[in-house]
Amino acid sequence: MELIESHLCFGGEQRRYKHSSKVLGCEMTVAVFLPPDFGPHTPVLYWLSGLTCTDENFVQKAGAQRLAAELGLAIVAPDTSPRGDAVADDAGYDLGKGAGFYVNATQAPWAEHYRMDDYVVRELPPLVEALGLGQRRGVSGHSMGGHGALVLALRNRDHFASVSAFSPICNPMDCPWGQKAFTAYLGEDKAGWAAYDASVLLAEAKAPWPIRVDVGLADNFLAEQLKVESLEQAARQSGSVLQLHRQAGYDHSYFFVASFMEAHLRFHAAQLK
Amino acid sequence: MELIESHLCFGGEQRRYKHSSKVLGCEMTVAVFLPPDFGPHTPVLYWLSGLTCTDENFVQKAGAQRLAAELGLAIVAPDTSPRGDAVADDAGYDLGKGAGFYVNATQAPWAEHYRMDDYVVRELPPLVEALGLGQRRGVSGHSMGGHGALVLALRNRDHFASVSAFSPICNPMDCPWGQKAFTAYLGEDKAGWAAYDASVLLAEAKAPWPIRVDVGLADNFLAEQLKVESLEQAARQSGSVLQLHRQAGYDHSYFFVASFMEAHLRFHAAQLK
Repeated sequence: MELIESHLCFGGEQRRYKHSSKVLGCEMTVAVFLPPDFGPHTPVLYWLSGLTCTDENFVQKAGAQRLAAELGLAIVAPDTSPRGDAVADDAGYDLGKGAGFYVNATQAPWAEHYRMDDYVVRELPPLVEALGLGQRRGVSGHSMGGHGALVLALRNRDHFASVSAFSPICNPMDCPWGQKAFTAYLGEDKAGWAAYDASVLLAEAKAPWPIRVDVGLADNFLAEQLKVESLEQAARQSGSVLQLHRQAGYDHSYFFVASFMEAHLRFHAAQLK
Repeated sequence: MELIESHLCFGGEQRRYKHSSKVLGCEMTVAVFLPPDFGPHTPVLYWLSGLTCTDENFVQKAGAQRLAAELGLAIVAPDTSPRGDAVADDAGYDLGKGAGFYVNATQAPWAEHYRMDDYVVRELPPLVEALGLGQRRGVSGHSMGGHGALVLALRNRDHFASVSAFSPICNPMDCPWGQKAFTAYLGEDKAGWAAYDASVLLAEAKAPWPIRVDVGLADNFLAEQLKVESLEQAARQSGSVLQLHRQAGYDHSYFFVASFMEAHLRFHAAQLK
């Protein structure tokens, strides 16, 4: 990984790297926050951003560095999709670049580059840990990335030791964003979709950790796209612990995310130490 | 003022307004953070942003809302210049739109719209206070806006009850950014420049309040553009209290601003209550 930017921030370092991703077949940028005195004892929280975002949105808007520095948490914020002229794209904001959906695509023209599941879970961690960080990993994210956090954790229960989400798409098989993305990336056959649906995965087997989810009740996407009730039902079905916080008056923006970032960072830190 | 955006944030409201500015002769946007339970007891901190910024940079990047909500501070972040197709501009990022320099321009083609001093000090406060806020006012800012904060406070000692700055241009008569801006907006005659130079104003008369200034020692602009030594000398000359904090390792970015925002907000709150 090549360091392209570094800023001292709350006594830690907000870095930005670029690297040639073998998994995605393109050059990627990734943000890494290193707390003061980081080392092999330092756990790493992976943050997955939402539609239209890059590796920069979280870093600039979430206000996480203050408490991450205090708690001794590193935070890795990858980009949301493969990038570059060689990578397939779509005119819609909710498909293609900026909308990787954290799946391994199986369909043309997406399958060649869109392997965000493998990128986040297999390729990035060794690169990140080689900076001198520990192997205790948490995952969180927002919206499409909130779903990414839930589904990557539920698919890799030993890989992550803590998971939370803000405003996640909870049941993509049953909402327009998810149906559009899964049809494109995974094909028409819905049998293949279940392996990337957080509500289906959570219903099938008890989660090994408590899951914290915050949603705003003034979120425009809540009813049609997020479907938190499906996640609640899935948790009941498998006897999983879901700490679902419905926050009155909050919307889908980073103003909401920033407002509850402290609660999520403390939630992760408690499980990652 | 017409409300165009509002987000619940840390229990307060991050609002955005547009309004037709009589002083600037154009439509302007302005960000207003209202803490929970705001009212006539609520003081208002004016935040002036730097070159290339709009009313959005501070709101998204400074992470100020958490503590402003806790301290009961409203924060007003205006745009950095007049805007619109009718407003004169320059190809350089450091002149024209996005670079109002918080002066009342006297020279063509700038004098018609570039009256940011009057806008911030005369036009905005009554509009803001009509939202139900108090008349205790502080002012802070970053870079060009840090200079704006210093100079508008020093020119209006009864209007503001507290002042601070991050990485301010301290002596614009003696640096490239300032000389370029002052020549364009105020003309070749340097006699007119002194009225908008913080170091000159501070040297002339003792400031009625302590001034807090933070600069990063890894700031690329420190030596050539910021000239904090001139401000230090001016404070000594007039017997003013300058709390100058040189922060090792920090640069000119909002990662620096965010890191010391809490210290500045507490500094203002203590004087504004």
